[in-house]
Order: sequence, then structure tokens, then C-alpha cells
Amino acid sequence: MKRLGIGLVGSGFMGRSHAHAFRAAPGVFDLPMTPVLELLADVNAEAAAKAAAGLGFARSTGDWRELIADPAVDLVDITTPNTLHLPIALAAIEAGKPVYCEKPLAPNAADAKRMADAAERKGVKTAVGFNYLKNPMVALAREIVESGEIGEVVSFRGIHAEDYMTDPMAPYTWRLDKKGGHGVVADLGSHIISIARMVVGPIESLVGQIKTVTDRRPLAGSSEMKPVEVDDEARALVQFAGGATGSIEASWVKAGRKMTLAFEVTGSKGTIEVDHERLNELKLYTTGQPKGREGFKTILAGPDHSFYKEFVPAPGHQLGFNDIKTIEVMALVRSLAGGGPKFLPDFREAWEIQRVVDGIVLSANEKRWIDVTEV
Amino acid sequence: MKRLGIGLVGSGFMGRSHAHAFRAAPGVFDLPMTPVLELLADVNAEAAAKAAAGLGFARSTGDWRELIADPAVDLVDITTPNTLHLPIALAAIEAGKPVYCEKPLAPNAADAKRMADAAERKGVKTAVGFNYLKNPMVALAREIVESGEIGEVVSFRGIHAEDYMTDPMAPYTWRLDKKGGHGVVADLGSHIISIARMVVGPIESLVGQIKTVTDRRPLAGSSEMKPVEVDDEARALVQFAGGATGSIEASWVKAGRKMTLAFEVTGSKGTIEVDHERLNELKLYTTGQPKGREGFKTILAGPDHSFYKEFVPAPGHQLGFNDIKTIEVMALVRSLAGGGPKFLPDFREAWEIQRVVDGIVLSANEKRWIDVTEV
Amino acid sequence: MKRLGIGLVGSGFMGRSHAHAFRAAPGVFDLPMTPVLELLADVNAEAAAKAAAGLGFARSTGDWRELIADPAVDLVDITTPNTLHLPIALAAIEAGKPVYCEKPLAPNAADAKRMADAAERKGVKTAVGFNYLKNPMVALAREIVESGEIGEVVSFRGIHAEDYMTDPMAPYTWRLDKKGGHGVVADLGSHIISIARMVVGPIESLVGQIKTVTDRRPLAGSSEMKPVEVDDEARALVQFAGGATGSIEASWVKAGRKMTLAFEVTGSKGTIEVDHERLNELKLYTTGQPKGREGFKTILAGPDHSFYKEFVPAPGHQLGFNDIKTIEVMALVRSLAGGGPKFLPDFREAWEIQRVVDGIVLSANEKRWIDVTEV
Amino acid sequence: MKRLGIGLVGSGFMGRSHAHAFRAAPGVFDLPMTPVLELLADVNAEAAAKAAAGLGFARSTGDWRELIADPAVDLVDITTPNTLHLPIALAAIEAGKPVYCEKPLAPNAADAKRMADAAERKGVKTAVGFNYLKNPMVALAREIVESGEIGEVVSFRGIHAEDYMTDPMAPYTWRLDKKGGHGVVADLGSHIISIARMVVGPIESLVGQIKTVTDRRPLAGSSEMKPVEVDDEARALVQFAGGATGSIEASWVKAGRKMTLAFEVTGSKGTIEVDHERLNELKLYTTGQPKGREGFKTILAGPDHSFYKEFVPAPGHQLGFNDIKTIEVMALVRSLAGGGPKFLPDFREAWEIQRVVDGIVLSANEKRWIDVTEV
Repeated sequence: MKRLGIGLVGSGFMGRSHAHAFRAAPGVFDLPMTPVLELLADVNAEAAAKAAAGLGFARSTGDWRELIADPAVDLVDITTPNTLHLPIALAAIEAGKPVYCEKPLAPNAADAKRMADAAERKGVKTAVGFNYLKNPMVALAREIVESGEIGEVVSFRGIHAEDYMTDPMAPYTWRLDKKGGHGVVADLGSHIISIARMVVGPIESLVGQIKTVTDRRPLAGSSEMKPVEVDDEARALVQFAGGATGSIEASWVKAGRKMTLAFEVTGSKGTIEVDHERLNELKLYTTGQPKGREGFKTILAGPDHSFYKEFVPAPGHQLGFNDIKTIEVMALVRSLAGGGPKFLPDFREAWEIQRVVDGIVLSANEKRWIDVTEV
Repeated sequence: MKRLGIGLVGSGFMGRSHAHAFRAAPGVFDLPMTPVLELLADVNAEAAAKAAAGLGFARSTGDWRELIADPAVDLVDITTPNTLHLPIALAAIEAGKPVYCEKPLAPNAADAKRMADAAERKGVKTAVGFNYLKNPMVALAREIVESGEIGEVVSFRGIHAEDYMTDPMAPYTWRLDKKGGHGVVADLGSHIISIARMVVGPIESLVGQIKTVTDRRPLAGSSEMKPVEVDDEARALVQFAGGATGSIEASWVKAGRKMTLAFEVTGSKGTIEVDHERLNELKLYTTGQPKGREGFKTILAGPDHSFYKEFVPAPGHQLGFNDIKTIEVMALVRSLAGGGPKFLPDFREAWEIQRVVDGIVLSANEKRWIDVTEV
Repeated sequence: MKRLGIGLVGSGFMGRSHAHAFRAAPGVFDLPMTPVLELLADVNAEAAAKAAAGLGFARSTGDWRELIADPAVDLVDITTPNTLHLPIALAAIEAGKPVYCEKPLAPNAADAKRMADAAERKGVKTAVGFNYLKNPMVALAREIVESGEIGEVVSFRGIHAEDYMTDPMAPYTWRLDKKGGHGVVADLGSHIISIARMVVGPIESLVGQIKTVTDRRPLAGSSEMKPVEVDDEARALVQFAGGATGSIEASWVKAGRKMTLAFEVTGSKGTIEVDHERLNELKLYTTGQPKGREGFKTILAGPDHSFYKEFVPAPGHQLGFNDIKTIEVMALVRSLAGGGPKFLPDFREAWEIQRVVDGIVLSANEKRWIDVTEV
Repeated sequence: MKRLGIGLVGSGFMGRSHAHAFRAAPGVFDLPMTPVLELLADVNAEAAAKAAAGLGFARSTGDWRELIADPAVDLVDITTPNTLHLPIALAAIEAGKPVYCEKPLAPNAADAKRMADAAERKGVKTAVGFNYLKNPMVALAREIVESGEIGEVVSFRGIHAEDYMTDPMAPYTWRLDKKGGHGVVADLGSHIISIARMVVGPIESLVGQIKTVTDRRPLAGSSEMKPVEVDDEARALVQFAGGATGSIEASWVKAGRKMTLAFEVTGSKGTIEVDHERLNELKLYTTGQPKGREGFKTILAGPDHSFYKEFVPAPGHQLGFNDIKTIEVMALVRSLAGGGPKFLPDFREAWEIQRVVDGIVLSANEKRWIDVTEV
């Protein structure tokens, strides 16, 4: 079978997750190509060598340009901090190689657009790792909406809240550097925006609010305090192009929330609810149930939901975070081989998501409603 | 013991609920006065007589002015549609009688202010029936916030959603009449606003969004369709005076939600969650729990929470909707007798709540942030 | 309207609850007779006078025989410790007065049978306060089973667990006195047995297990320790006459459980689940749901469920513990007036429940399966 | 690094799951040996070749004896139907090769004992795939019990319920063949027994009840009905050697339950609850919480719980069924390499589990309490 040489740039949380998914995917799915962990690039040769050994890559390099040039690398996979996405992706596109990039795609919409334009000009396939879109229960939400089971969509209420920055002494990281983009609205907000767009459709206008809760944080391993310029909490009221309205919220200081990527879609005939702290469940209410028997139904992920059965044939046995990434990788490999549907979100869609992220910040700073097309 | 002659104006859902509470309260609580169901006024003598018999009132009248003038009536209790609150309340105040009025106090903030001013000028005691504020779990939320157990409040996320208007053929009622005030933002929104103010504090500014989902509804028992001019859904981003930010939402077309008066308060050291579909529960997370043992705790209402033990001595046995109204009536009677703390919310506080209601509509119509003081 | 003079014997937790229910019922329901809190008897004249004042009874007595003889007492209501049920009930029956008695009816099945026999001989109406049977969600469970919605019943899994005796220093009370009957299997076990019988039907045979967890407890207000001879935990495997099998458990030392009176009934076509810590919910699964949409439905108590709408017209607004007792009192008053269906459980049914209680202890002591008819 | 040649016998649900775990483990964990999918045996050469291709094995054979003899096979991994476990395992042991076998180990305790004895005689390492024991939340339950956080264990209440045989037309499979052992008590009951033993300790005596709900089922792809001789539901009261009591239940006809492997352990100072339909959660109640703040805490699996952080560094992100199998494989590989603790459950422990399984059936058939040592 055809091999697909993976060139991974970056080896943090997400680099590790990608490596795991590429390794697991062929055992779970029938794939048209076999992913091979070919080459890993990191900040320097030493770090790269160590990471390559740990993650099972055949070779390593301290220079991502070498990785792009390497003839055995068929897919450039970027899991670096945000600020590096653009140069690496543009170089890969220039080299005519497909790019798989972690979210958010860029520090701002302008950069994201540049990347999407470049890829389209070159005819290069792209993919962005908004992995939760591949959760079978999110796919089911979309399927229920599209099928009309809950009627016309009236409203959306979404949030992505975690608490890893709740502690005011949680150290300063690259996520807090304004050069890398916005704060939680980019890091977590982009996930809930990606779901809103996938399940309900484009957001036309919005009004946002952002807040920096802790304005100075210690540098790791130091007593020095560094000012924080990005948001810890963000929320927006949104108007969807299709007529629905709703709200979106993001917070990394929501004490107690570990993975509350949660949303509720209400239509004229029903409501759907999903929360990733219980990612194998979807709650569904539809009107027209018999009198005295109306209620939300808790549907457990099972073999009738997209791709679940490839992991386990019995319902209710639960998929995990890494399984969802494996689904993403499968969809990507199939799309690269030309046999599957186009992978989404691609760079174009990631730009659209980023416009909403930037729009929330713009609106919050100017204290006014904005059209997303202003971004 | 001193009697407290109740004069009830109106006999719908809430009239019935008040009568039940006045009857139940003396059996549950030690009260300084004994409520007596003295006189009931309704739209005409016949309706009043029938309602009085059903609810256990001694006498009835078709004219609320008679009720106010009646020497045996010590408390004027108003449960009519909104539009009638003002004239009745002003007349009662003029007569120097304390007034207990259902929420929302008035169709608009100006009327509410007139009522609050009049009462204060006359030195008449007032009370408004935002009953959920009396839920022991809401009181506990406030107590936890005030005690600092969750640190400084960072954000509030509240909603009151039901689904009784989801069906587009649900008939037109007085709640949809613009003369009576706003739609769901007044009817349900006022509840979540009252909680936000009680638990977090005053709202300084906001930006709102409202939406009429079904714009024509049938007149009851008729095929005629009447245009709907009020909102079916509303939401707002809010800035609290104390620094916290948040969002508020109201909907009576949220399919499947029966009594989702729910909120979450996040502080720098914890989070509280309450949902009235499970009104006997409060979820609490605090930072600083032992490693590997962190989690939200589900606290069941019990004898250690205000007033629960007067109903039942054992924890977890559950209070119901009517019990909460009984707590409200107890607090009112004690305050009237002078022995208890001042009853809140009074007309002044109800006016403050109404300003936020009106502010959401104003902001939505003008598509801009507003200061609540503009209302 | 005809008055119904209530003569209450005992004024503890349940006495108070009965008084509350008799007071509340006429405001909630159309009743054919008006309950009047006529006379209260307690251990002595002083205690009775104090309790009568507190609970709103017109008169009081230190002698329950006087109460039975009193011509204004139409219903003898017994809420004393178990050991006193028999003499009071027999005297009331002898006097031809209907009896309303708290559960469990007697310390043992023999006494319960004597009481049931006496009542039937005299043609006196009886009622036993297994109040949870009046929870609309328990009634709904029975309705679903009877209608065949879940097919033929296959199994039952029930428990009543609380934790009020978890603390080994929780003081010795009359509930621990063997003369008053068994321990938790009588106090809490009888509730889950009453539900099993109502929802599934008679229990034919069983094998039980009992355990005394704390074998000495302090006398209240003393340092003296008294041996405990009754069970703290009990469980049984049961065989229903109709063919279903199942298990039953009772514990008052289940740390953290405040009101876990919970059961699950599985039929050939579905499963029902109820837990009184959320007494306004019933979970229902039925087979034959569309593929990929199967799930347990959470039904919230609402106006379509027996008697809910008399309390509140809107679904999801929640009934409480006292409301359920009010339903019980309504059913009793209607049955006494001859207009309603026969009140159940009566003494005969309470004897059947007691046989299962005694059977569990007998089986546990003899370490063998027993037929309930052996008791 | 040293390679570990895997020889897999069987390629159904569990065979696939093992292959996935062996492939995934080295990317997740630091392993002392590298598992290599060397050789797969199935019922015939053709089936084996197809399965080997699908699961990624290098070679295949239609004869498991060849697999055992193959010098590249270092571990014999058995995932066949139960009846075949014994001959294959004995042959592998005879050949001095370690054996990894799916549960239940054997159709009966006698066979299981033969296997355990043989392995110990030969000094061969063994492992049995009771995978849920490797769920971090089950490990946490044990840790909490062992640390004394909930005091001395008072009782255990466990169940494993699914519904895959609810439909009376669900076809006859090898699981229903009495030669392969008992029915649901073996298939699912063994899981909950394994947890009871791991968390609470040995079971000394019990009384059981079993039931065949559907006594004839169609042969797959045929209209012929075959009598079913095994149980569809089973339950038992148990006495633990350490003094605790409890109950155990198993059902594969519990409509709506997809993966209810659930248990509650109550100690003198607290209670733990776990349910595999939400396998990333553990609920914990401890006594001594502040007044008015008592409640069950919902702990989400996170990096502080054994092995979670190897999969994902952030809490609440969820592990899935396959991840748990990956933990099992890691523990096995480490134990084979000699670096890790002894793998449990081994054949000896699986025999102990099987004795309880057999004991429940024996007790049910003879309708009496039995000592587990009778088996």
C-alpha cells in the first residue's frame, strides 16, 4: 500500500497526540495509505532527536525547512506555537506539500487568509485540527439539525470553559503572548466557534466582551512577573446568517471546568445538548412526544454513529480524546488519497473561524456590534 | 395573635399560589401574625365569588377599589396581569396599606419607579414576588459568594428558559401584549436578573439582543391570527458594578426546557451552579482540594440551609415550588410585623430589575451598549 | 361542607407532616369534606398542649383514649412510635372510627394482621402512610408497567438508603429498640417493599441478609452505651409471584445518601428508573426507538401526571416532600367520603408489606430462602 | 530494544481490541519491550490470513499449535471463545510461553484451576483481560478504600448490565452454549466480581439467583429456534471475608443499559460510586465535610490518576474503552519484562473469580447459601 510520510513540526501536547493518532489510525480504519512517522522537526537537533525517539519517528531535524524539503515527507504536520504556523505552512505550500496544522490557524485573520489564499493558489490540500468536530456526537448534532429533526434552528448557546489558568500564579506561557494572537477566545473560543459554524452555519455579526482576570503572571521558574495582555474570558452575542441568534463564551479561568466544551442548539421542534466532559452523550428533545412522556433523551455514542464502530462494536463503551484525533487523521488520510470527502475544516474554513475570533476582540475593544466581514 | 387580613386581587396561577402559601405558612413557621384569607377581588363579582370559594377566601368583590378600602384588609396582594399593577398599587399605597405584588412589577421602569417613589413617600412597605430568590439553594449561593468561599466573583452565566410558547400555535395571551411590557425578557428574564443582582450585585451596563420567533399567534378559541410584538428570546452581555462580567438569557421557546432557571457564578477560587429543574441541588467547586480529589460537589438542600428544616427535618427530602412561595410569605409576614428583616425585593429593587429588562430591549433596538442608568 | 375532625396521636416529624398536609389539602384539592385539626394527643397533657399550639390543633389531651372517645374526632391519625400503633388502632377500630396510621404498621406481621383483621371485622376504613407511593412519578411507573409500555416485567432493583445512622455516635433511639420491630429493614425497607408490590406485584419468596454495623450506641445526652439489636443494613433477593425476580436493599448507614429511595424496573421492552433524591424525575427507555436515537428519556413531573397540576400548572416546577403527603391526605379524605377509590395501602396491604420485612429477617437469621407465606 | 512477538489466537471483538492496544501502547508509554504483531491464528488459514491483514499481523496460520511453536512468538494471546482457552493455554504453558487470555478464563472453575496450577508449576507468567480493572477510576476506587479515606468497608453494591440480548430474536451465539460456561453471570458477572474482589477483597459465601428470560433463540441466518440453557440475569448476596456484605448483579437483557458496569462501595466514613457509562468519573462522599456543604463530589479522570496523563495531559478530556485496554497491555509488557509489578489478575485470580461465578449458579440451582470454597 502507498505510504504517507509524515513530517511533524513540534512535539508538545498536540504533537504527541498527532503521533498517537497516526500510529493508531491504520489499526482502526481501512486506510488507502499507510502513515509513516518519517521525520520530526523541533527547535533544535537535540530536542528533535529526543522527541523523535519518544514519539517513534524514524528521523529528526532541528530545522523545519529541511523537513519540508525532505523527499520522504508527504504531509507537513504543524503543531508548533501559533506564531510559527504561517512561515512553515507557506513554505510547505510553496513546496506543493499538503499541510495539516493545529488550531487556531494563525494569530489573526489576515495571516489565516494569506495561508488559505496561498494554498488555494497552489492547489495544495490543507487541514486544521479542530478535533472536537470529529466527535461522533458533534457529527450527530449536525446530522440532526440538517435532517430537520429539530425543525428550523432558533438559537445556539455555546461555551468552552476550562480552568487551567484559574490559579493567578499559573505561569506565563506563549499562549499569553499577544504576538501569538488573542487569549482564550483564540485557544478555546475557536473550538466553540468551529462547532457553531459546523452545526448552525456562518456567523454574520456579533458583539463581544473580553476580560483579563489576572493581569500579571510569573515567568516559569522565576519570580519575575510579566504583564498579561490577552483575555482570560470572552463572550459574544451572535447573529447567524441563517437567522438564528445565540451566544458564545470562552474561559480558561472557570474554576472546576475541565473540558466544558458544551453547546445547546434549539430549533422550532427540539433541542440538542452536548458537553465534552461527557463526550459520548448527546441529549435530544423533540416536540410531539406523547403527553406525559415528554423528556430529553440521553443518547450514548454507539455503532450507529459515524466511525464509533471502528473502535468498538458495542454501544456505550466510550471513545476518548485520542480516538477523536484518530478519526481526524483517518479523514485527513482518506481525503489526501482522493478517496474520501474533502477534509474540513481546511485553511479557508479556519480563516472564517479566525474572523469570528478577531471580531469578538475588535467588537469588545470598540464596544459595538460588528459585521464579521469587517475583519 | 394578631391577624393579617389578606386582600387578594387576581386569581390565576399566581393568585392560587399566594393563597396556598398564606394558608400553609402558619403551619410551617412561627409567625408573628396570622394571615386570614379575607377578601378576593376579580374582574367581576361572579368571577370573584367563584374564585373566593375555590381558594378559601371569606368574601369577594368585583371591584378592587372596595378591597383596598375594606377595613379588614391589612395587606393588598396583587396577582393581576402587569398592566393593572400600577393603579392598584398606587391606590393601596395612597390608602397607606402595604402591598405585595407579583413580578414583574410594571410594564416598564418608569411605572415601576413611580410605584417605588410613591411607596417610599408614604412609608408603605412593599414586596415583590420574585419567589426563586427564596429557594434555599439560591440563598446558599449568595451566602457562599458573600463569605468569600469562591473568592472574588469573576463571571455570571444565567438563563431562564421554558418552552410553553414553542408551539407556534400556542395562543396569544396578555403576556404578548406590548402594553403589558416586554415579552420573555420581562416574564422570565426578570427572574434571572433578580438572581444576578442578589448573588453578584448591580448591573452597570449591557448589550442586548431580542428576537420574536413566532410573529403571529392565534387568539384563543378563534382562527384569527394576531401579530406578536414582543420578544420570544432575549440575551445580554452584562458588566456588573463590582467588576464581574457575564451573560443573561431568557427564552420561552426553548424546546424541552420546563424550568431551566439556571446560573453559574465563577469566582477566583470556585464555581457555583444551580438549576431550578433540580431546585434542591447546588453544585460547588472550590480550588485547593487535594490533588486527584478535585471535583464539583452536589449539595442537597437540607436542614442546614435557610428555612428547609421548617418543612422537613431530614436532608434530601426535597422542597417544591409551593414551599418556596411559602418561605416568601413567611418573610413578608415577619417583615410586616416588624420583627424580621426588611423584605426584599421591594418596589425599589423591582424597579432596578425592571431597568435591566428595559435596558436589554433598548440596547437590542438601538444595537449598542447602554448604561443601565439610561433607563 | 361536611367537616372531618382529625384526632392526631403523636407530634414528631410525621405528626407535623400530617398536620401540614391536612391544612394544605383543601387549598390544593376539591375535597368532599373539610379536615379540621380538632384534637391532639401526646405523652402527657403538657406536651400535647404545646404541640397542639404549634401545629394548630384546637384542643389537646395527654390521653389518647380520650381522643378516640371524643365525638368531634372523626379520624384517628396515629404517628407515634411503632409499639403504640396496635393498642391505639385497635381501640379506634373498636370505637368504629377510621384509622390513618404511619408506617410501618406494626413491629411484626402478627400484630399487623391482628390490626387488619380487626378493621375488616368492624368494617372500619384504614390507611397507612407509605407516602412515596403517592409521588406522581411512582404512580407513573405503575401506569407504564400496567399499560405494557415496557412489556412484561423481568426484574426489579430497589433500594432505600439514607445515612442518618452512619455516625457511630448517632444516639440510640426508639427505632433501635427491638420491641418496636426490626431496624432499617422496617423503617426504610418497608418503603421500597411497598413500591415493589405496587409497581410489580406480590413477592412470593426471598432470601435475605441483615447486618448490624454499629453494635453499641450512646443514649441521648448520656455517656452510657446501649447495645443495638437491630439491623443497620438489609438486602434480599426476591421472586415475584408474576415471574419477575429482583433485589431489595435498605440502609441507614449509606454515607452520603440522603433520600435514595430508588428503583429500576426492567421489562421485556424497556426500563424505568426513579430516585427520590430527584423525586420529580422518571427515566424511561423503551425498545424500538429509531436507530442511532435510542436513549433513556428524563421525564419531569408535570400537569399530565396524577395530581401534579393541582399544585402548579406548569411542568418542571417541582413538588416537594410535603406535597406528596398532601396527595396522600387528599386520597384518604376522598376515600373516607366514599367518593374516591379505596385508599391503598390499607392495613391489609401494610400487613403484606410487613410479612416481607419479617421474612427478610427470618431468612437472614436462618440463612435460607423462605416463602413469604411462612410469615 | 527487545522485541515482544505477539501471537494472537482469535480475531473477533477482543482480538481486534488486543491488536489495537499492542499497536497503541508503545506510543503512549515507555515500554521495556516493543510489541510486534507477529503471528495470528484463526479457525482456518483463509480466515487467519484475512484477519492478519486487517489487524496488521505479519503472518498468519490456521493452526494455533503452529503459533505456539513459532520461535518468533514470545507471548500467546488468546481471544477465542471460552471453550478453547484451556487447550491453547495449556499448550502454551507447556511450551513455557507466557499467556495473555481474555476473560472469563474458562467455562468453569475446575478448568480455570487446572490452568492456574499448570502455569504455576511451569513458572509461566499469565494475565487475564479483565480490562475494566485498569480503568483509572477503578484504580482510584481501590486507592481510596486502601488509604482508609472512606473508613472500613461496610457494603458493596455492584452490577454489570447491558441489553444486547433484550430482543428475544437476538440470535443464538456461542455465549449461550452451556459447554462454554454460564451465561451472563460469566460474561458480564465476572467483570463486576473482579472489581468487587479488587476493591473490597475475597468473597467468602453467597446466595445466588439466576434466570433465563428468553428460553429459545433463533440460530443466526436461520428460522430454526435453539433452546437456551444459560442465564440471562443473575444476582447474588455476598459476604466478604473482611466483614463487608453486598450484592452483585448481571444482566444482558436490561433494556437501555449499554455499559452499566457500576458499583458503589460504602465505608464507615464515606461512599464511592463508579459507572462505566461514564467511565471517566468517580463520585466520592466523605463524612466530616462542613455543615451545609456536604455532598458527593464528581471527580473527573485527570493526570493525577494512574496512567491518565500518558494519554492526555489535561484533566477531563476523557479516556475511552480502547485506552483502558492499552493500559492493560502496558502493565502486561512491563510485567513480562520484569520491571513492573506482577500483572493481576493472573490465572490464579481468574480462578478465584470463576469460583464466584460458578458459586452463584450452584447456589441458585440448589437454592441455598454456599461457601465459595465449595466450588
